[in-house]
Amino acid sequence: VNKQKGLEALAYIHSLTKPMNSLGEIEKMAVQLSEITSNIKPEVFPPGVIVFAADHGVTEEGVSAYPQEVTAQMVKNFLSGGAAINVFTKRVNGLLEIVDAGVKTDIPGVRSEKIAYGTKNFTVEPAMTRMEAVRSVEMGMQRADAMIKNGAKLLILGEMGIGNTTSSSAIAAALSGIKPEELTGRGTGIESKQVAYKAEVIQKALNKLKPDANDPIDVLAKVGGFEIGAMAGAMLYAASKKIPVVLDGFICTTAALVASKLNRHVCDYMIAGHLSVEPGHLHVLNLLGKKPLVSLGMRLGEGTGAVLVYPLVEAAAEMVKGMATFDAAGVSKERTIK
Amino acid sequence: VNKQKGLEALAYIHSLTKPMNSLGEIEKMAVQLSEITSNIKPEVFPPGVIVFAADHGVTEEGVSAYPQEVTAQMVKNFLSGGAAINVFTKRVNGLLEIVDAGVKTDIPGVRSEKIAYGTKNFTVEPAMTRMEAVRSVEMGMQRADAMIKNGAKLLILGEMGIGNTTSSSAIAAALSGIKPEELTGRGTGIESKQVAYKAEVIQKALNKLKPDANDPIDVLAKVGGFEIGAMAGAMLYAASKKIPVVLDGFICTTAALVASKLNRHVCDYMIAGHLSVEPGHLHVLNLLGKKPLVSLGMRLGEGTGAVLVYPLVEAAAEMVKGMATFDAAGVSKERTIK
Repeated sequence: VNKQKGLEALAYIHSLTKPMNSLGEIEKMAVQLSEITSNIKPEVFPPGVIVFAADHGVTEEGVSAYPQEVTAQMVKNFLSGGAAINVFTKRVNGLLEIVDAGVKTDIPGVRSEKIAYGTKNFTVEPAMTRMEAVRSVEMGMQRADAMIKNGAKLLILGEMGIGNTTSSSAIAAALSGIKPEELTGRGTGIESKQVAYKAEVIQKALNKLKPDANDPIDVLAKVGGFEIGAMAGAMLYAASKKIPVVLDGFICTTAALVASKLNRHVCDYMIAGHLSVEPGHLHVLNLLGKKPLVSLGMRLGEGTGAVLVYPLVEAAAEMVKGMATFDAAGVSKERTIK
Repeated sequence: VNKQKGLEALAYIHSLTKPMNSLGEIEKMAVQLSEITSNIKPEVFPPGVIVFAADHGVTEEGVSAYPQEVTAQMVKNFLSGGAAINVFTKRVNGLLEIVDAGVKTDIPGVRSEKIAYGTKNFTVEPAMTRMEAVRSVEMGMQRADAMIKNGAKLLILGEMGIGNTTSSSAIAAALSGIKPEELTGRGTGIESKQVAYKAEVIQKALNKLKPDANDPIDVLAKVGGFEIGAMAGAMLYAASKKIPVVLDGFICTTAALVASKLNRHVCDYMIAGHLSVEPGHLHVLNLLGKKPLVSLGMRLGEGTGAVLVYPLVEAAAEMVKGMATFDAAGVSKERTIK
């Protein structure tokens, strides 16, 4: 990122008609956006939201509160505009694409980029081949490319996949060495005894498959998901095009961790949107060195948390573009007091 | 407020295609909006922002980082669209009115509802007469009435007045019995030794004028400001019309405390937008029993914090109006797991 542009942006922000630093995190975000885009007056509108959906073989182990068919049902709901991500994206006038990255059934009308019909059950065998893992990342890059060519000035990556908090906890544990029980939560809503069982399932899989912490593609292949690889790829591509990415919850942030292991500079292009109630989320944000903007008790996924905080990011950009300077407005500056 | 409508709203929200409670604070806010508006599908757009500006005699004591003339200069900046509140209100397509509640000079083009040409220096004498205090509250009610008649479905009250954190700390101390040093902060940006001096100024004024904690109008008259009375009046009026109010920072929330002392039910109509860095803000929010949605290190005023979180409030309303139910979307519900 362009640190020099960030310094120039900071000086300019201090010339705007408000007490210095009085917009707190909004000002810091404006500086980061300038660093990312190499522009003192960054453009972040319209945001582009890509929701990748895929199924997870590990659902066979009974780790989710919802049956596997809900993945496909929710994709249909996305296509007909009835899900939370539809409602929230519409409100911010964002672009939205739903991508089938590997749902178990075929869904008419969806953008199909299926890597396979769901991953394998990773308690038994690797979730996918190494080649499938690479292809999921590449496919995410391609969808990001298309979304950026379509005009998006900021990316939000969402996901749908029954079982994907289990996969995310496994990935985060494999990459960080943190124990699965610290990274495992209620997901869509299982009870606390099920959470302990879910952590056991993950630990057993890690013991059996031994993913290599220094090889993010190996981790993705052994315990990952197609939508997680795709999100990581989209993030890498966005960074290469100086496009900021707003992170959503635990699954999206785990994809960011995978991306950061492939290229550590990618973190500089990310804004942590919110802190979810999924306990692994804070761990993964810490691993990335990211502080979330808000904490609203959310755990929905789909990209919803990121889209909900997007107006704050937009406000940071608008502040720089729209506000008058002290000189232009004829407002007296701060004085030194006796 | 209509608790029954809140229960109906909650049941409906639980039928929408998302894991139960997975939108956290957004869902709670949707329930509150239903209680306030007596409508399961509440309307909060467009928001109406009223910024009341007034001067404070206590600036003679050197309690602010900015000279008094900045109040009038910033009003001109509001009128020409260059301030933060202009930029942020425009982005949410809000209505905006700037009201001169008692600036020391006359300002061409502003809506003038001057109670007087600034308050008196309350370290010497009461800031205003009791009649002026009452008139400031009534004037706020009238402006809220006009804004609501103009179509606003939600109110945000902002302020501009060099010296008004000093007045707010004095009001909060007088109404709560909390010591001024705990309620006093850097305002627009004074140094820490000036903060101690500012708290002393307030303590001396309270000792001298002895405002009656059981008489909010007496407190407002002795150590208040015209913009603070006006904000309190606007909040009371909004509540009477079932219009939700999003609170901004310390000064606005102190006005809410005054309003709550005049009618304790008014709190039910308020949503705490953000937690500012001004130390008195958390105290006053606690006195009101309110938990802020976000904490972004802001301390600008003008209503900016409330306008920045407005999209979250809007999202709560849109969630209810726009999302499909499980039944309508054909999505399987949560199951009981083995």
